[in-house]
Amino acid sequence: MTDYKWLKDGGVTAAQGYAAAGVSAGIKASGKKDMALLVSAVKAQLGATFTTNQVKAAPVKLSMEHAKKGEVRAVILNAGNANACTGVRGINDAKAMVQETATRLGCKKHEVLVCSTGRIGIPMPMPKILRGVRKLVKELARNGGKAAAKAIMTSDTYVKECAATLQIDGKNVTIGGMAKGAGMIHPNMATMLSCITTDAAIDRKTLIKLAGECVEKTFNRISVDGDTSTNDTVFVLANGMAANGVLNKNHPELFKFEAVLTEVMRKLARLIIEDGEGISKVVELTIQGARNDLDAKRAAETIARSPLVKSSWAGNDPNWGRLMDALGYSQAQVKEEMIDIYYNGLIGVKGGLASATPMSRLRKEVRNRNFCITIDLHQGKGCYGLLVNDLTEEYVTLNKGE
Amino acid sequence: MTDYKWLKDGGVTAAQGYAAAGVSAGIKASGKKDMALLVSAVKAQLGATFTTNQVKAAPVKLSMEHAKKGEVRAVILNAGNANACTGVRGINDAKAMVQETATRLGCKKHEVLVCSTGRIGIPMPMPKILRGVRKLVKELARNGGKAAAKAIMTSDTYVKECAATLQIDGKNVTIGGMAKGAGMIHPNMATMLSCITTDAAIDRKTLIKLAGECVEKTFNRISVDGDTSTNDTVFVLANGMAANGVLNKNHPELFKFEAVLTEVMRKLARLIIEDGEGISKVVELTIQGARNDLDAKRAAETIARSPLVKSSWAGNDPNWGRLMDALGYSQAQVKEEMIDIYYNGLIGVKGGLASATPMSRLRKEVRNRNFCITIDLHQGKGCYGLLVNDLTEEYVTLNKGE
Repeated sequence: MTDYKWLKDGGVTAAQGYAAAGVSAGIKASGKKDMALLVSAVKAQLGATFTTNQVKAAPVKLSMEHAKKGEVRAVILNAGNANACTGVRGINDAKAMVQETATRLGCKKHEVLVCSTGRIGIPMPMPKILRGVRKLVKELARNGGKAAAKAIMTSDTYVKECAATLQIDGKNVTIGGMAKGAGMIHPNMATMLSCITTDAAIDRKTLIKLAGECVEKTFNRISVDGDTSTNDTVFVLANGMAANGVLNKNHPELFKFEAVLTEVMRKLARLIIEDGEGISKVVELTIQGARNDLDAKRAAETIARSPLVKSSWAGNDPNWGRLMDALGYSQAQVKEEMIDIYYNGLIGVKGGLASATPMSRLRKEVRNRNFCITIDLHQGKGCYGLLVNDLTEEYVTLNKGE
Repeated sequence: MTDYKWLKDGGVTAAQGYAAAGVSAGIKASGKKDMALLVSAVKAQLGATFTTNQVKAAPVKLSMEHAKKGEVRAVILNAGNANACTGVRGINDAKAMVQETATRLGCKKHEVLVCSTGRIGIPMPMPKILRGVRKLVKELARNGGKAAAKAIMTSDTYVKECAATLQIDGKNVTIGGMAKGAGMIHPNMATMLSCITTDAAIDRKTLIKLAGECVEKTFNRISVDGDTSTNDTVFVLANGMAANGVLNKNHPELFKFEAVLTEVMRKLARLIIEDGEGISKVVELTIQGARNDLDAKRAAETIARSPLVKSSWAGNDPNWGRLMDALGYSQAQVKEEMIDIYYNGLIGVKGGLASATPMSRLRKEVRNRNFCITIDLHQGKGCYGLLVNDLTEEYVTLNKGE
């Protein structure tokens, strides 16, 4: 096991050399904080993951370009407007946001990344945004992580941040992060933004590979509603200020860094799913014994999208019949008579049939806010896990938008 | 255009030579009718379509076998229990149901088809079922269509039946049908059962082909919730009593029969979607200009599954940003800047951007219970249409099951 410690109150400015700020720029009608800035004192290596949606927001397109160029200094973020489906104007707005940030910080444009989240299809209120950038630069603080995390919230009900420390080459290394989530959340990825910062020294190639792998195991394993957004972005910045020996694929302690980076992302992903829009349950869904991992993923994602399955959870109803039904129409290979289904380890379905466990006993497990469903398809060795919410009336009410 | 007439009050016994009954056998706790029997006076040709779900209910498995053997005399149906995920016992129960029906009617076992709908995973109450069969045989009536249609209802709020007549070879030919729907409805197919009867004479091969093609254009184009059930079945029985020249691929009036069969199925499919669980809207969604028809289908089905898109409709919110998002993560090839979206013919999105149409004007269209959304991807000539419901709090409440 890797030896590491969670920091009691850390976030995106827990690691050495980072400062942040969060302000109200007047984009949100509520007057709440809606812009954030994250800055590294020195250039940082970058690992980045972007939405797989073909319709990408302007800030995603621009940040993808900048990410290719290498080291970065800052990330400018806003909530309240996604700057998606905004065409050439949107690109120009994202560029102006970056330009203003670079000018005020005295760095190069391509060293600034940009993220937006909020409603799609509405032009950015640029005078507000540019004033916001200037305000942010003035308010940058070594302990500004929480303010930044607050400013990127949309329908989130609480701030999402965490940080952990470990030792590499005898040096203290810190990894911290912030995230926002709430809706339009399904693998690859969620309407989620996350920035992770570390003071570890790590080479570019290794960081890019690691960031991608860790996202796959964490942020890509949560599903609120099956919708993959236009704006999803995860940045991992590593500025090297911990002065450890540069991590690369031959470094004997790389595995420790990877383990803690995964834990930080997992914690943020968990905070997102626990705060899913209108949810009342978080279900740890595991498919095992699938023909292969892809089949396991298909089965898990089909269940994660089924409104019938998810409604039954909201009603404390194990309803394994709906799970069987969803497995049957998933693209995974299943044999009805081979399927076992467990609720918190209690067998509910044995060989495709009702087990001897009384329904009242299963119902007791499903009454919990958090429970596990494990499905063994007995077709091979493939497995896949996903954290899934239920579907509630509250979710619909929140998303009706009138 | 094909000349045909809708009958004012017809259903599954409108065509010559059919009788039906619907009774309460005590399967539904409410005491409502829950078993139906449909009989043809003479052997009928059969066209059948079954669920594509890998988990198939026992009656589906048995009817699939019988369908291979050719001509049929009767269909026995029950609501309240799906006889799905019931293993060997379920198969034996379905066989016993068929056997009792065949014995009482004096026909062969393989001439009887069987359909069940209701909750999954619960053994059939066989004494009640067998008593129900005997009661049904006694109550068979030439005008029993409506009673049968009533008996197959589950969460349906109204009886679904229709019938039309046309002339073939100067003879009156009638096509009538009944259906049940309400939830677990998504192409290939719905938790829906439908029986269509006609007195047309048609050869087996032609009927099988026609039935499949017509289902594809009608019952497979409705989506309530994206869940494909274990029990979906459509039967088309043709007993030849109209004494027209036998329809085959060379018959000059085959196209007329096909057109009216399609209309009957379309009407039943429409009745199902208009009665979707908890729905407040029926949206006619058309994708055109896709790279090919498969891409158009992918785009349509992705939208039909998006809880965000469907919640926005429930709130009278055009929210084309969510449509753009869903198109982007569908497996269809899209180019953001090429997408046009129309609401009842009014352009809402032009080239991926907000059109000049005021949002208030689009909102007015979306306030209707029925409206059309047409999306042109400008990638080719592929197109696909689907009838889709919205997602309401009521749907969740109905499906919570507690």
